[in-house]
Amino acid sequence: MASESGKLWGGRFVGAVDPIMEKFNASITYDRKLWEVDVQGSKAYSRGLEKAGLLTKAEMDQILHGLDKVAEEWAQGTFKLNPNDEDIHTANERRLKELIGETAGKLHTGRSRNDQVVTDLRLWMRQTCSTLSGLLWELIRTMVDRAEAECDVLFPGYTHLQRAQPIRWSHWILSHAVALTRDSERLLEVRKRIDVLPLGSGAIAGNPLGVDRELLRAELSFGAITLNSMDATSERDFVAEFLFWASLCMTHLSRMAEDLILYGTKEFSFVQLSDAYSTGSSLMPQKKNPDSLELIRSKAGRVFGRCAGLLMTLKGLPSTYNKDLQEDKEAVFEVSDTMSAVLQVATGVISTLQIHRENMGQALSPDMLATDLAYYLVRKGMPFRQAHEASGKAVFMAETKGVALNQLSLQELQTISPLFLSDVNHVWDYGHSVEQYGALGGTARSSVDWQIRQVRALLRAHQA
Amino acid sequence: MASESGKLWGGRFVGAVDPIMEKFNASITYDRKLWEVDVQGSKAYSRGLEKAGLLTKAEMDQILHGLDKVAEEWAQGTFKLNPNDEDIHTANERRLKELIGETAGKLHTGRSRNDQVVTDLRLWMRQTCSTLSGLLWELIRTMVDRAEAECDVLFPGYTHLQRAQPIRWSHWILSHAVALTRDSERLLEVRKRIDVLPLGSGAIAGNPLGVDRELLRAELSFGAITLNSMDATSERDFVAEFLFWASLCMTHLSRMAEDLILYGTKEFSFVQLSDAYSTGSSLMPQKKNPDSLELIRSKAGRVFGRCAGLLMTLKGLPSTYNKDLQEDKEAVFEVSDTMSAVLQVATGVISTLQIHRENMGQALSPDMLATDLAYYLVRKGMPFRQAHEASGKAVFMAETKGVALNQLSLQELQTISPLFLSDVNHVWDYGHSVEQYGALGGTARSSVDWQIRQVRALLRAHQA
Amino acid sequence: MASESGKLWGGRFVGAVDPIMEKFNASITYDRKLWEVDVQGSKAYSRGLEKAGLLTKAEMDQILHGLDKVAEEWAQGTFKLNPNDEDIHTANERRLKELIGETAGKLHTGRSRNDQVVTDLRLWMRQTCSTLSGLLWELIRTMVDRAEAECDVLFPGYTHLQRAQPIRWSHWILSHAVALTRDSERLLEVRKRIDVLPLGSGAIAGNPLGVDRELLRAELSFGAITLNSMDATSERDFVAEFLFWASLCMTHLSRMAEDLILYGTKEFSFVQLSDAYSTGSSLMPQKKNPDSLELIRSKAGRVFGRCAGLLMTLKGLPSTYNKDLQEDKEAVFEVSDTMSAVLQVATGVISTLQIHRENMGQALSPDMLATDLAYYLVRKGMPFRQAHEASGKAVFMAETKGVALNQLSLQELQTISPLFLSDVNHVWDYGHSVEQYGALGGTARSSVDWQIRQVRALLRAHQA
Amino acid sequence: MASESGKLWGGRFVGAVDPIMEKFNASITYDRKLWEVDVQGSKAYSRGLEKAGLLTKAEMDQILHGLDKVAEEWAQGTFKLNPNDEDIHTANERRLKELIGETAGKLHTGRSRNDQVVTDLRLWMRQTCSTLSGLLWELIRTMVDRAEAECDVLFPGYTHLQRAQPIRWSHWILSHAVALTRDSERLLEVRKRIDVLPLGSGAIAGNPLGVDRELLRAELSFGAITLNSMDATSERDFVAEFLFWASLCMTHLSRMAEDLILYGTKEFSFVQLSDAYSTGSSLMPQKKNPDSLELIRSKAGRVFGRCAGLLMTLKGLPSTYNKDLQEDKEAVFEVSDTMSAVLQVATGVISTLQIHRENMGQALSPDMLATDLAYYLVRKGMPFRQAHEASGKAVFMAETKGVALNQLSLQELQTISPLFLSDVNHVWDYGHSVEQYGALGGTARSSVDWQIRQVRALLRAHQA
Repeated sequence: MASESGKLWGGRFVGAVDPIMEKFNASITYDRKLWEVDVQGSKAYSRGLEKAGLLTKAEMDQILHGLDKVAEEWAQGTFKLNPNDEDIHTANERRLKELIGETAGKLHTGRSRNDQVVTDLRLWMRQTCSTLSGLLWELIRTMVDRAEAECDVLFPGYTHLQRAQPIRWSHWILSHAVALTRDSERLLEVRKRIDVLPLGSGAIAGNPLGVDRELLRAELSFGAITLNSMDATSERDFVAEFLFWASLCMTHLSRMAEDLILYGTKEFSFVQLSDAYSTGSSLMPQKKNPDSLELIRSKAGRVFGRCAGLLMTLKGLPSTYNKDLQEDKEAVFEVSDTMSAVLQVATGVISTLQIHRENMGQALSPDMLATDLAYYLVRKGMPFRQAHEASGKAVFMAETKGVALNQLSLQELQTISPLFLSDVNHVWDYGHSVEQYGALGGTARSSVDWQIRQVRALLRAHQA
Repeated sequence: MASESGKLWGGRFVGAVDPIMEKFNASITYDRKLWEVDVQGSKAYSRGLEKAGLLTKAEMDQILHGLDKVAEEWAQGTFKLNPNDEDIHTANERRLKELIGETAGKLHTGRSRNDQVVTDLRLWMRQTCSTLSGLLWELIRTMVDRAEAECDVLFPGYTHLQRAQPIRWSHWILSHAVALTRDSERLLEVRKRIDVLPLGSGAIAGNPLGVDRELLRAELSFGAITLNSMDATSERDFVAEFLFWASLCMTHLSRMAEDLILYGTKEFSFVQLSDAYSTGSSLMPQKKNPDSLELIRSKAGRVFGRCAGLLMTLKGLPSTYNKDLQEDKEAVFEVSDTMSAVLQVATGVISTLQIHRENMGQALSPDMLATDLAYYLVRKGMPFRQAHEASGKAVFMAETKGVALNQLSLQELQTISPLFLSDVNHVWDYGHSVEQYGALGGTARSSVDWQIRQVRALLRAHQA
Repeated sequence: MASESGKLWGGRFVGAVDPIMEKFNASITYDRKLWEVDVQGSKAYSRGLEKAGLLTKAEMDQILHGLDKVAEEWAQGTFKLNPNDEDIHTANERRLKELIGETAGKLHTGRSRNDQVVTDLRLWMRQTCSTLSGLLWELIRTMVDRAEAECDVLFPGYTHLQRAQPIRWSHWILSHAVALTRDSERLLEVRKRIDVLPLGSGAIAGNPLGVDRELLRAELSFGAITLNSMDATSERDFVAEFLFWASLCMTHLSRMAEDLILYGTKEFSFVQLSDAYSTGSSLMPQKKNPDSLELIRSKAGRVFGRCAGLLMTLKGLPSTYNKDLQEDKEAVFEVSDTMSAVLQVATGVISTLQIHRENMGQALSPDMLATDLAYYLVRKGMPFRQAHEASGKAVFMAETKGVALNQLSLQELQTISPLFLSDVNHVWDYGHSVEQYGALGGTARSSVDWQIRQVRALLRAHQA
Repeated sequence: MASESGKLWGGRFVGAVDPIMEKFNASITYDRKLWEVDVQGSKAYSRGLEKAGLLTKAEMDQILHGLDKVAEEWAQGTFKLNPNDEDIHTANERRLKELIGETAGKLHTGRSRNDQVVTDLRLWMRQTCSTLSGLLWELIRTMVDRAEAECDVLFPGYTHLQRAQPIRWSHWILSHAVALTRDSERLLEVRKRIDVLPLGSGAIAGNPLGVDRELLRAELSFGAITLNSMDATSERDFVAEFLFWASLCMTHLSRMAEDLILYGTKEFSFVQLSDAYSTGSSLMPQKKNPDSLELIRSKAGRVFGRCAGLLMTLKGLPSTYNKDLQEDKEAVFEVSDTMSAVLQVATGVISTLQIHRENMGQALSPDMLATDLAYYLVRKGMPFRQAHEASGKAVFMAETKGVALNQLSLQELQTISPLFLSDVNHVWDYGHSVEQYGALGGTARSSVDWQIRQVRALLRAHQA
């Protein structure tokens, strides 16, 4: 006997049942989250069984009624789990049987937990995608509203974290909002692949009892049905895609958070977080820390970790269902919760952020116009490479003399190039500078307005 | 002076130039792969400059001609790199200047390496996606052809690697082919987001010289233009997506490889790899190892590693271009090469694989029909849960008696349930078994044919 | 006002407090697990304050007594959390104040949550490492016991999953046990780096009140103290190391699980899992699935995902404490729980596994002795490369004739090489074959015994 | 025939050989890097064969001499690869045979590529670890030298990127140096596990010809021999550990790089990178970008990606050697090269960095002494929690009045607490502030000196 051999090899005592194994195997602690979609799926399936002649109309009604009762108990918090309810499917069917008797035993006809669980998960994730999509657009809309309202504010644009060129604050906001619109587009694509019905695939070979999968699809409002029962019960592409969608979206938010953390330092002093999104220090009375942004930044790691974990679990797995796939749900649940919180907190942060316009303006400095100075020469006919070099000489001359770039006299500039004339003064106007960048996508007012219109159009398309 | 402080702190000697830093910084060893698209992008840009009045027609022609010459040198392998050519953009422009003189200095007007490099990369990846898409469909087509030709072969379907139910061999092939059709669908989506033009975004603020980005888009046949210059120069979503696409596709191929490695063991003996895709042992004369499949399986790790690496690099990066982004290209190049090889080798393996029909058939055993035995009772009106239990009793009875499940006498079966009648014999026919699974997606002949038609339709849609 | 701007930008309503932010920020739902070590750390710290003259003896006693009461409430499940208890440190200090009044306000003198939380985590992990180390050795011991008891069982050794050479079953067991001894060694190293006291580092700059960190170290039995307060409060190497330790250990267990899953298939039929570690199918009555092993295999992904997540969170983080670091604890707790369950389940599986000796023996076939046939020729003086080729010819000859390798007649063998004599018969004895591999680490009895002694010596060293 | 079936299924043409497969399978393009250690391993093995009586002394000498010649050809760049040289082992043995004839065929007796390749890799990595260890200590030493020389410089310490408390610049340097000492410690541990000899393990079962593995160990100066031949040929723990070591080390360097990038912004202006480690902009003449630091930061992703990739490849792999393991070498080579460059560039950066002492000093502000103000009250007997609150009130009062914290009058302070007396003035001295933090690990001069001594002691221990 196995349990006796157990003693033989000196392992810990093992009887017929190992309580650690039972807990290790059970998923009820987290898959109970699926109670509603499990009932939904079972109701549809019982309709399919009735149409296939495997249930009478009366039996179906009995089952439907019983399932409604099960759902009611969950909704009211009165559903009682048994120790033997290893997963939500077992729990619901067990309870159904208590409520309606032996007819309950007909519900699982031709169905397997393999197609049942993946149907449930798809139903749950379909709803989650809609919720997250709404939260994502709420964030985007908040950003666009703000970009529109503060379009006149200029501040330094950075590359390599070095001051590069003057830009509109709205241009910065939109750079992040535009990234998020791609996340929205991708989420729709993921949702499309979630929205495919696997029910009717059985454990591996399909359904042998004439269940009409088109009927099941229509009952559950899926967009399509899966093509192959072996694939349907064991592929978790839609989970991996969802986790990667979240990972990439978090990467965007981590970059926005990083910017705002920097802009909120004493040294930058461009923005100030609302108290609602900051915390104090247990030791230093003067501190106000951007915890909300730091947490957003950090969650990029956590979310990606779940994606990495699932892909590793999938790697090299033999065909069809293996218990390894049970790892999918906790990853989905945790990431969904995280994304929901992150998107709402990010919206709150952006909604309530204060900006310090004066500091932003004062951070602009003439050397940031060195590129424009080169363009000045280009417009006078000098090839860009020479103009770039000439402007570089001016920068060096100013540094050497210890003056700002715009404080070089015309005479001094003319030692660099005779093309410099008195109209070079127009270069030193930050407002004028940004207005040059009028090509689509640039930081000129007209282009920023165009961006706003583009994103608003996407928003309308999304809401339609 | 910096280099003197260098000595002060006891570090290794550093003059004005640190050769290790130069090598660390340079990308020419790998980004030379972009030579063709770099020329292509520059040609389009010079047309844009001409339209904007920044180049005369003659200057443009001079530049176009010079760029053609540069391309010719690359194509013929006569292009000579200089030690100062840190990247392909520098190399090409340097060479252009040698060929046509100062006019070359006008080409970069209003352009930055930031928008140039990402335009090049998108051009290169767009082409790569098309190539990989073709290879992927070649693999899928090979699988479907094979599925069609070998539709009559039955063998065990496994779940948890335990024999589960009889299925068609074609059903197994299609389970993997169907997964690959999703990869194809995703690749198209990734390509759509690659096919967006960033040129005209400058370093960060946009283009100030009236370059018509729609003209650039049309010249380079992009599907759309980027919306925001800050985002355009620094987002690498399309790279991350491509790497993830490859990772998920490799996960599928790793699972198919795992199956075939198992099916090719002495113990399973269902398939035999062609010699072209096997190798021998340096020690053991009798060995023939499935190296091709093992390498495919292993590459799932490598490819995902690149995806993980890029996402970590992107995490928390400040806005806009940072040199960190230089990590994108080696990842893309390596993964593209890997995918190209993997898809072709997989096609070769599937094309040349031999199957052992007799072994497949002999591996079917009556206990795999236990589910069908339960369905027999279901069809006689017994609720499935009871039928499942009854069938389980039969399995146990057969095991106890040491006979096969189909060797239980009718009398013996009737001790379990009086519903068993002589027609129970029909259950013990594997061909009859698979034909029951006629719901869409199942393993019945009609359903397998339907799957083949579905995938062929996708193939035609792809080729259109 | 921030909350008014909130309305301005159209975000969701935000007052002084955003409940989603509060929940997002709070850690009490999981860090309550630290209640005991938090009390322990505070008790030590109050002794440090007393020695530094910042507490009187009476105040210290009051605090110590109060902390004991706090601990008692946790132990008895009577501790009541307040809505404002954002973390365990706040909760415990709040409760202490309720119990002993204003003196409680002296406890945090010179301490910061930054050094407090990392001290707590190290205390907790130090204990966890000891627990996991014990469970790991329990598993190793079970394996070695089994290897010793079943040393006479021979079965095929595989490379590339192809039958390679006959080996002892014990040799296989030991191959996995030996891998686990490295995990044990690594865990000790990780523990050594966990066992370093950060308390007395304050928030960043250190402790200004003369607290004797050596006293704190001794009170809490740490092996050493941290060297730099900035590093001490923000480095999470020990967390990353622990997560990686677990990842690598899980990789080992995933490989062992994979082997056992294969060996437990119908096709291999070498082993049979105890019922306690298998489950049935909801659809297929005959199935018995190795869920325990599949779950072990799958957890390699989950655990590594946590490691990947933490490293991504750490990447590029500015110096010293940032809220991002709050991600450390859930990763540690989840991975600790997982490892504990996995190690115990693995021990249970190994303890109760049945082996099928006859099947193992029957799976040995003469072609697996082809290497030995080559060695036969080597012993007669033929260079190995020629011998390898000659043996390969024999394998081919046998295949062509459709006989087993050992059924080739002496005459036939002599057509390949005249060195073959009648003593070639001794090659065809599996027991004789394994006994050849007598070099240390090989599969001969003496070498397997040596391995067992080596691992037992490590076990004794560990227990000492 | 397989290749005919190939045509049947419509795949690309495949003859006996598929050139893509050949390239896919070959490792010579990268494992040639092992030429020297491969020769070294073979020389040792031939001595082992001689001792075991499998080679005569003359044969051994012939082989040794031939191997020296092979090495010489590699060293001089005259070794010519054949198209059939799929890996370095094949190439070297093929060449040896050309040089010395049939005796070469005796070299591989009892050896397999499985034990050969892993021996080679361990030899190569052992050397690499020593090299990297030296580079790491060179970096640490540079940092400590600098910390010692600039110990008087004060600047703001940050937590959450908010100014927290005044610290010594040296304290910051040491916070990173101390982290690197842990990397050094870990590298030694990894090296210890690399330094174990697998040679003599054969393909799987061990060595059957009486080769003395202790002799091999001594010949190749390994610290120990592997315990189990199955494990020895297929475990890649030492590779995974090395890749993780590099990942964690890169995490540290990415954090240091992030700090320095921030400190080098216009806004912080604490440090300036040497020109040797910066680059300009192709567009913006005024820019000087910290490319060296950005590349260091980015490589954390790349290196970790390799670690993630290898672990995924290992996950769930069946026992013993599978071709999947071939992925190990490229990962090791790339990561070794990256680490070597990163460590040297980091040393160069630190060596040549200029600091702006005045800016550092001016960035200190009285509110950073709020904690010290609380400690002032603590020293007068107020419980810390009250003192923290009182200090917070003072911060708020100063903000409300629009003055610096140290400009509140004594009368004003006394409205908050009567404990404030005229000696509160001493609080407002930054030099005095840092000197308070005298507990070990703090930022006081004595503690910084202690840290320097501690790290120097580690350095000496390392060099010994």
